[in-house]
Amino acid sequence: MTRAAVLGAGSWGTTFAKVLADAGCDVRLHARRPELVQAISDRRENPDYLPGVRLPDRLRATVDPADALDDAEVVVLAVPSQTLRGNLTVWRELLPPDATLLSLMKGIELGSTKRMSEVICEVTGSGTGQVAALSGPNLAREIAEEQPAATVIACSDPDRAAVLQAACHTRYFRPYTNPDVVGCELGGAVKNVIALAAGIAEGLGFGDNTRASLITRGLAETARLGLVLGAELTTFAGLAGLGDLVATCSSPLSRNRTFGEKLGRGMTVEEVQQSTRQTAEGVKSCRSVLDLARAHGIDVPITEAVVRVCHEGEAPAQMVREIMSREAKPE
Amino acid sequence: MTRAAVLGAGSWGTTFAKVLADAGCDVRLHARRPELVQAISDRRENPDYLPGVRLPDRLRATVDPADALDDAEVVVLAVPSQTLRGNLTVWRELLPPDATLLSLMKGIELGSTKRMSEVICEVTGSGTGQVAALSGPNLAREIAEEQPAATVIACSDPDRAAVLQAACHTRYFRPYTNPDVVGCELGGAVKNVIALAAGIAEGLGFGDNTRASLITRGLAETARLGLVLGAELTTFAGLAGLGDLVATCSSPLSRNRTFGEKLGRGMTVEEVQQSTRQTAEGVKSCRSVLDLARAHGIDVPITEAVVRVCHEGEAPAQMVREIMSREAKPE
Repeated sequence: MTRAAVLGAGSWGTTFAKVLADAGCDVRLHARRPELVQAISDRRENPDYLPGVRLPDRLRATVDPADALDDAEVVVLAVPSQTLRGNLTVWRELLPPDATLLSLMKGIELGSTKRMSEVICEVTGSGTGQVAALSGPNLAREIAEEQPAATVIACSDPDRAAVLQAACHTRYFRPYTNPDVVGCELGGAVKNVIALAAGIAEGLGFGDNTRASLITRGLAETARLGLVLGAELTTFAGLAGLGDLVATCSSPLSRNRTFGEKLGRGMTVEEVQQSTRQTAEGVKSCRSVLDLARAHGIDVPITEAVVRVCHEGEAPAQMVREIMSREAKPE
Repeated sequence: MTRAAVLGAGSWGTTFAKVLADAGCDVRLHARRPELVQAISDRRENPDYLPGVRLPDRLRATVDPADALDDAEVVVLAVPSQTLRGNLTVWRELLPPDATLLSLMKGIELGSTKRMSEVICEVTGSGTGQVAALSGPNLAREIAEEQPAATVIACSDPDRAAVLQAACHTRYFRPYTNPDVVGCELGGAVKNVIALAAGIAEGLGFGDNTRASLITRGLAETARLGLVLGAELTTFAGLAGLGDLVATCSSPLSRNRTFGEKLGRGMTVEEVQQSTRQTAEGVKSCRSVLDLARAHGIDVPITEAVVRVCHEGEAPAQMVREIMSREAKPE
């Protein structure tokens, strides 16, 4: 039985802990707040992030990261992207040296413009083959309800990829492996930004034609950026690229899309932030994605527009018209 | 002023006639039923297919195809795919010899497995450069309401493509050109089949993760088939591939998605057909797409599954589970 630690008990961390337990792993889920640990232990439910979903008995919650990490073969990191470095700096002494580290996070670090797996390697000193990323069309709530879903586990070491694949393969959750870590992580990070744009368009009253155009051009700008960073084009056409992007841009369960929708309806970034408790990664990541693109000379018009709306006060209506009317004769 | 004839006054034909008129063309719209022509003439509205949308004055409806086609420089064909050959056989004597023929249709002919532009060339004796296809994320109702949309005009003759582009470019409708007629037509035809599958999944209660996976794999099977037929991979990543597929699979306005949703809820094909007046092209085209794929030795699992549900009595629930659980280790 694989020993797995999940660090971070938000909706995706909790859901993935359930998947691991359902796949037969011995799972410890670390949450920072004692009252959340208590609720999970007493009621088998995460009332804050996954109300109404019964968590399996094989999943044990703990407030102590050392307890969660003790003997772990698989360590799953599921904290907000911009807190990863700080959290890992605390946890690194507790990591079993040969554990495989799996990132569920979809963001690019502000300032450094590093992907999450790069931050993990840097802080822990692990080699790239020891660090994996999971990404795909994986709205947490649907998976928690055991609706069928597929995902991609990206790792440069095929043996570790296979271990992770076996550790989380259930009747309702099907992981595929892919060596392209850069492509999977970039697809996951940029899709949050495109989902903000799709949400803004929806909030303004635009329909499915506009959203489909934003998704199409959003994937094109993700792929352009990915190619210069060494990603494979096929990754963007797959579940961790197109699949994740479509799910996130379409679902009312997506935080980034919903955040954008409220911006489109006229709320300010601050007002939306006050009205929601969960993190919309794209609001922060849009700046680091833009920095990354500029550093490599890549044109990312949708990301630029999202930055202008989220951080420079541009009116959302102006933004959508601009994106939809960019000059470009042949497709 | 370009003289344009639009043959077929369904929702897309009528909408595109409005686009042409708004772009400055002198447009005649041919409808078969005199009462529809009368309603358009008297009320400036197509009450059957586009209720509530005011049609421009520059658009004139006529029951006489010879009247519509007289002196036309651009002839737009917008009839149900499987009726094209019969209709064209009647109309071909009336076509001005040098007119550019533009297909709005998204289907593959049953029996012959020909694309619409192939049928047009065959029946009219026109060269391929004279025949174009238009495809993209273009839900008719949204465009009729003048929401911004982009589309692709595919034609092997760049001069004719440019004429068509100018003829339909408005403030809210932006056409791009692409020489890849095969890719654009195939994307349009297969997306109706994938939208049926997405609708079936939705009718069964599956969520956005499943739909996003179906879209991802659906585009992959479209591209596999397209490549052996000579299409360009980039077309499938663009508006006429991914864009059209996403719009059709997501929108409540899509007939094919809605048809599938009713199948997923337990209605039979006959029951759904009786309950709707409009054509769901995919129900017929799925068989010709499958024939085409088999003739070229290409695996199209989603199309196969749709054929089994629509024509061989397979239970929809069985179909979705099968598609989601196909074996494939690396992505």
